[in-house]
Amino acid sequence: MAERESQLVLGLDPDPACLWPQSLERSEWDLARLPGAAYRAAAAVTGHCRIVIEAVSDLCVAVKLQVACFERLGAPGWAALIRSAGAARERGLIVIADAKRGDIDVSAAAYAQAFFGDTATPFGEVEGVGADALTVNPLLGSDAVAPLLSEARPRGAGLFVLVRTSNPGAAEVQDLELAAGGTVSERLAAMVRRLGEPGVGEAGLSDVGAVVGATVPAHVASLRAQMPHTIFLLPGVGAQGGAVEDLAAAFAPGRAGGLVSASRSIVYAHERHGGDPADAARREASRLRELAWSLS
Amino acid sequence: MAERESQLVLGLDPDPACLWPQSLERSEWDLARLPGAAYRAAAAVTGHCRIVIEAVSDLCVAVKLQVACFERLGAPGWAALIRSAGAARERGLIVIADAKRGDIDVSAAAYAQAFFGDTATPFGEVEGVGADALTVNPLLGSDAVAPLLSEARPRGAGLFVLVRTSNPGAAEVQDLELAAGGTVSERLAAMVRRLGEPGVGEAGLSDVGAVVGATVPAHVASLRAQMPHTIFLLPGVGAQGGAVEDLAAAFAPGRAGGLVSASRSIVYAHERHGGDPADAARREASRLRELAWSLS
Repeated sequence: MAERESQLVLGLDPDPACLWPQSLERSEWDLARLPGAAYRAAAAVTGHCRIVIEAVSDLCVAVKLQVACFERLGAPGWAALIRSAGAARERGLIVIADAKRGDIDVSAAAYAQAFFGDTATPFGEVEGVGADALTVNPLLGSDAVAPLLSEARPRGAGLFVLVRTSNPGAAEVQDLELAAGGTVSERLAAMVRRLGEPGVGEAGLSDVGAVVGATVPAHVASLRAQMPHTIFLLPGVGAQGGAVEDLAAAFAPGRAGGLVSASRSIVYAHERHGGDPADAARREASRLRELAWSLS
Repeated sequence: MAERESQLVLGLDPDPACLWPQSLERSEWDLARLPGAAYRAAAAVTGHCRIVIEAVSDLCVAVKLQVACFERLGAPGWAALIRSAGAARERGLIVIADAKRGDIDVSAAAYAQAFFGDTATPFGEVEGVGADALTVNPLLGSDAVAPLLSEARPRGAGLFVLVRTSNPGAAEVQDLELAAGGTVSERLAAMVRRLGEPGVGEAGLSDVGAVVGATVPAHVASLRAQMPHTIFLLPGVGAQGGAVEDLAAAFAPGRAGGLVSASRSIVYAHERHGGDPADAARREASRLRELAWSLS
């Protein structure tokens, strides 16, 4: 972050119907090998992610890969997820798998293998995605988060637990007031703080982060007070209506305390501002990067 | 359900290190085609699911595929998920994808394509898993559930929304008392009821079901009162400690009101009781099926 002077996360939620030009050509997949729509679409998605990453990687610190967009392409889509993660890593970017997983003990452990670890089989070990971080849904409680954390922590990876999401409907459940005081979100924040305490590093930040929507700046401020050592992943800038200018509270523990995530506003900047997709994306990424850096 | 006199759901959460004998041989995958541990492990997992399904399918109405267990095998694992779903459908079983997905609008729509629909690409349509039902995490509110429902409903498919899960940690969030009265679970139940109302069919049951852990019978009874038209998916029987005998309240709207899900207690019955895996699984499945049927 210090090296790149950036807190910007490039969100990639590729729609095979809206890819950048030359995506298929840049896939580096062997298109003669397997025919079929799913394989070609997954190849094109990989090429798209690769060229978007190449366009803006020096302005960003991480990519956030929306796993749903890969899963809808089936098995080749999962291969595209792994290769897109690889393309990001090649450019020195942290890989955040935005999968919002949450399940009971044994199933959570299986997701931990899928995203962070590997799986022992009689045929040899099977490697997972090798993500640096995973978004996690905490509705099932801390015993559903713990197996993910035990796989992530020894590898130097981390979690981003949903505390207050960026969508309008988030209020229905997350903002409910509790009889004992506070809201559901605040209770989730307490869980994040507790799980994260043993993982606070030299910089004063923990390996258990929180997803806090950039669309609700008032929550950003109050949740920051509750989670002083937590890295906030702040999605919702741009297309969803969040503004970087309103996020100063996120950076209270220092610049690394907040990661500003933008997806469509960078990748489809050329649709609003015209010009070459890569140039338009660079301009928008630069703007967001400078804005966040100046604020923090 | 009436035809098979069963409310039993076969849970499949395959661990490649604990598969039934002959799993690899029964995979029907071309093992000469692709080398590598992931491919062979996924083939074996498919064969395992196929022979377990063959052993007990006439005693069950559905399979519940734990998606985490397939995802940890990467792209071949996703192919195994699709083929295992196919093997279940061949035997006339309803396919429940236990994926506990939940995400904001566009991402939820992508998950809907992955599990229920298909995805338009410049290379042709890519088919999804073709599930009959999906488990859904409602922490993000009803606008995150709606895109899944709009894809499922017109296809005659449905959702099972997490209302009260079977794990001990569920209490931490789902049992929180609200200032306005009731608990978080009860608020989720109200959401399920509301979303499900337009989907109540001739049998008086809705296409929006609820996951209610068999480990918490007191909750089953109180949640049933709140959701009179909702099909309850009741996991946690057996290995997790839930007992079919305690679930009578689930069947208040009729036998089809409750689906009893058991995974390890059926698949690994031979480890406790000895004998051939298929025979032991049949005995345990028969026992659970008769118990639930007699109760309802």
